[in-house]
Amino acid sequence: MDNNNRRSLTPFQRKWHDIIFEANTPAGKLFDVILLVLILLSVIVIMMESVASLGTRFGIWFRVLEWLFTIVFTLEFIFRIYCSYRPRAYIFSFYGLIDLLCILPMYLEFIFGGAHFLLIIRVLRLLRVLRIFKLVQFINESQQLVLAMKNSRRKIGVFFFFIILLTIVLGSLMYVIESAHNSGFTSIPISVYWAVVTLTTVGYGDIAPVTPLGQAFSAMIMIMGYAIIAVPTGIVTVEMNRIRSKNEVSMQVCPNCMREGHDIDAVYCKYCGSKMEK
Amino acid sequence: MDNNNRRSLTPFQRKWHDIIFEANTPAGKLFDVILLVLILLSVIVIMMESVASLGTRFGIWFRVLEWLFTIVFTLEFIFRIYCSYRPRAYIFSFYGLIDLLCILPMYLEFIFGGAHFLLIIRVLRLLRVLRIFKLVQFINESQQLVLAMKNSRRKIGVFFFFIILLTIVLGSLMYVIESAHNSGFTSIPISVYWAVVTLTTVGYGDIAPVTPLGQAFSAMIMIMGYAIIAVPTGIVTVEMNRIRSKNEVSMQVCPNCMREGHDIDAVYCKYCGSKMEK
Amino acid sequence: MDNNNRRSLTPFQRKWHDIIFEANTPAGKLFDVILLVLILLSVIVIMMESVASLGTRFGIWFRVLEWLFTIVFTLEFIFRIYCSYRPRAYIFSFYGLIDLLCILPMYLEFIFGGAHFLLIIRVLRLLRVLRIFKLVQFINESQQLVLAMKNSRRKIGVFFFFIILLTIVLGSLMYVIESAHNSGFTSIPISVYWAVVTLTTVGYGDIAPVTPLGQAFSAMIMIMGYAIIAVPTGIVTVEMNRIRSKNEVSMQVCPNCMREGHDIDAVYCKYCGSKMEK
Amino acid sequence: MDNNNRRSLTPFQRKWHDIIFEANTPAGKLFDVILLVLILLSVIVIMMESVASLGTRFGIWFRVLEWLFTIVFTLEFIFRIYCSYRPRAYIFSFYGLIDLLCILPMYLEFIFGGAHFLLIIRVLRLLRVLRIFKLVQFINESQQLVLAMKNSRRKIGVFFFFIILLTIVLGSLMYVIESAHNSGFTSIPISVYWAVVTLTTVGYGDIAPVTPLGQAFSAMIMIMGYAIIAVPTGIVTVEMNRIRSKNEVSMQVCPNCMREGHDIDAVYCKYCGSKMEK
Repeated sequence: MDNNNRRSLTPFQRKWHDIIFEANTPAGKLFDVILLVLILLSVIVIMMESVASLGTRFGIWFRVLEWLFTIVFTLEFIFRIYCSYRPRAYIFSFYGLIDLLCILPMYLEFIFGGAHFLLIIRVLRLLRVLRIFKLVQFINESQQLVLAMKNSRRKIGVFFFFIILLTIVLGSLMYVIESAHNSGFTSIPISVYWAVVTLTTVGYGDIAPVTPLGQAFSAMIMIMGYAIIAVPTGIVTVEMNRIRSKNEVSMQVCPNCMREGHDIDAVYCKYCGSKMEK
Repeated sequence: MDNNNRRSLTPFQRKWHDIIFEANTPAGKLFDVILLVLILLSVIVIMMESVASLGTRFGIWFRVLEWLFTIVFTLEFIFRIYCSYRPRAYIFSFYGLIDLLCILPMYLEFIFGGAHFLLIIRVLRLLRVLRIFKLVQFINESQQLVLAMKNSRRKIGVFFFFIILLTIVLGSLMYVIESAHNSGFTSIPISVYWAVVTLTTVGYGDIAPVTPLGQAFSAMIMIMGYAIIAVPTGIVTVEMNRIRSKNEVSMQVCPNCMREGHDIDAVYCKYCGSKMEK
Repeated sequence: MDNNNRRSLTPFQRKWHDIIFEANTPAGKLFDVILLVLILLSVIVIMMESVASLGTRFGIWFRVLEWLFTIVFTLEFIFRIYCSYRPRAYIFSFYGLIDLLCILPMYLEFIFGGAHFLLIIRVLRLLRVLRIFKLVQFINESQQLVLAMKNSRRKIGVFFFFIILLTIVLGSLMYVIESAHNSGFTSIPISVYWAVVTLTTVGYGDIAPVTPLGQAFSAMIMIMGYAIIAVPTGIVTVEMNRIRSKNEVSMQVCPNCMREGHDIDAVYCKYCGSKMEK
Repeated sequence: MDNNNRRSLTPFQRKWHDIIFEANTPAGKLFDVILLVLILLSVIVIMMESVASLGTRFGIWFRVLEWLFTIVFTLEFIFRIYCSYRPRAYIFSFYGLIDLLCILPMYLEFIFGGAHFLLIIRVLRLLRVLRIFKLVQFINESQQLVLAMKNSRRKIGVFFFFIILLTIVLGSLMYVIESAHNSGFTSIPISVYWAVVTLTTVGYGDIAPVTPLGQAFSAMIMIMGYAIIAVPTGIVTVEMNRIRSKNEVSMQVCPNCMREGHDIDAVYCKYCGSKMEK
């Protein structure tokens, strides 16, 4: 990142910036670990509150804890803005938005009841875990995964577009076939939902065909689904293969015969035997 | 396309041909966008009518709207034929047939009740969306997908043939094992349907084995299904890999014979033997 | 095949051998087509008999038809032996054994009731369809599929061995967790069946965990199953890729520079430019 | 392995060491086969005891047999330690720990009732089957599988981390949507369990959305799951492909530096530059 547009910080701000935003110093690491523990505790409290037997007995304690966590995270958010070189950039960054989303639901509950369960989104803050513990290898791997998904996003987009059209058509056909036989295909949207459940091989069984024609047609859809489920797998596999291959062949050229395609550990050219420059 | 067999159009027809069939002019784009909106509205109306609670309350309005949409699309279809250079070619083209199928069900309902729900097939007209918005990249990607499916159609055909024979045999065996125990395997066709549901890992659970022998046999079928589901995935992945690799072939053209498709490491043209420029 | 050990046939036998075993002559093709139709009819009759509503009404007719088909196929089987150059080899060949299996159940029913439904195995005789209609391309493709499965049979064998051990261990753990809570995990074999249903992602739902611990453990099994289902897919894909690649690179060597790896359509060596021998 | 730290054994110990730990001699092979049979019998007895109808009738006999097997395996374990060159290394080896785990549950039952069903873990001792029957080919194949899993463990770890965060977020959203409609989404942990069941395409159907919004959201999750299930498959396939390719690398050894791993088309050693013999 360029250092322009950076506002100047006081020494106090700068010191805390290093603690909050970096994880190189012992203090910075300690801060991050405490944060992680608080996030985990907060997520566990929300989960426990949602369990009826616990929620009714300890409800009041859970609410108190949730308010405490929310206040702590709100203060942290404000402090992050205060210590940031570019407050605006932080707020609109990926992590900044998540930090905001993680405190908003509590305040929103004054307007919409039950909204505070959305606080669970705090779990996404755990994504920082990779950065904090310097799991560089894992970051590298996850970037490869993200890159593979990114490179295949267009193909997957087209695939999803076809799947949506297909499920609407198949669902409607099943509605015409089954709707008169009390089999759960009560409307076209429900039938489209059934088509998605079937094509993705999830198969809840909450809706299932009962007429012979409907069952024969479903069987056809499922066998067709065999070929369809192969498509995204193929897309992603091919993409990963390319990323993997690129990472493995050296970009070096032999200084003598000028040929490429050498392994990364090659010292001599495998074609003409002349020494290669490192 | 060759320009033979084209009938000559009046200026009026030609002007509208550009608006209806092309999407290069502002007027053509506007026409297509309006069409898309109408198609989407029409699909939503049909979906809503199928929902019982809405269908009974607003039924009459939905029918009126559906008739309106059908009349508009009918007029559009006639106008497309009128403005086309080769009306016959248009009618029997992929899009022409869909355009026809999208208005027929409404008229068919005078003969078969409930047929008008098939109007939902209109959703397929949305396929034009790719062309209209000049999503060239997406068209390219979707052509790659279609090509991969096309190239592997024989292997997938053979695979489906085996699957059908296999499900008939497995279903019948389960029928012999389970039919005496009131477990839903009431006939061979139903048992074949169960075998398809199981092998494809959909697993509704509307029919499930209850005898120990039946459950042991099902478990064997499922584990076998592990290897089977790998087959179409393998077929499609290999095919996509090839298409991808071909796209990575050198863009070089032989300076002598002007042919393409050379490997990246080629020094001489593999067709005419003349030296290639690096 | 070598021509030794062949017994000599009379001209009558030889003529019928060509009709029955070959599909080159019009008579041979006709014979095969009639046979296919009879097999299909026979399979349909057995399926229809198993449907309760049809079976009780037309039961007697179905039995008559089944006896008729069985007599025809028995005569055909005897005639095949009579016309074969090597009767023993025919009987113990893949097709010979299927031909025998396709008539046996009818006679076995005198001993075991209900066995005649196994006649459905006749459907396997349809495998001949590939040979009869000279669908050479399809035979080639199916051989590639069979070869891929064959080459990966050891890896898949090891994989199945692991899966069986794994499901036994996981099933027993779930039995210990769930058995006291009336949730369908009534015995270890049933729990192992559940583990197979879950790991293969079939998921009938006839048995599902009800305790929080059981559900948490199941969720872990399912996520683990994500990685497991990838294994057979990987095995088969890699194998298919190799078969595909082998089929595509010419085995030709350049007569001048002796290098390999030329495309099948190459006329000149891509490394030294000298003409290659076809 | 180095021979240091080995204690010296008496001839009696040495003789039995060869019988118990090796499978080269007839006596060693016999010992292993008897052991395998005992393990299988023991596993079958535990399974049968868990079946209610058998457990109540023959319960006492099963207990006697289980104690017998446990005593035999305990003696075997002690004897293995006694005959081992490095007892400590044996106890903490993979097989040593399994051997211990296979006798512990019986003794633990004095403390925890029902624990003896964990004896089923004995089935893992069958892993020795590969070693005993010298199924070298299979060992090689299974090592390739294990290697592929090992190499992709980081990518799969990252993938699992994302999946866990994703299921928590999706489950909570579904809880907020569905919890008020008596549809089984009774708490956030249950909803997370549902999200795992759905994303892995297991789909029991014990919990299924009933509100239109919940069904629409589920359909979106499932279609998204299409792309997600492709990820581990891609990871494992690419890894297997690499292992396979490496195995296809030339078996040539450089005549000068004696290093391996050269590409098949290498003319000069890529490590020391000396010419290689073809």
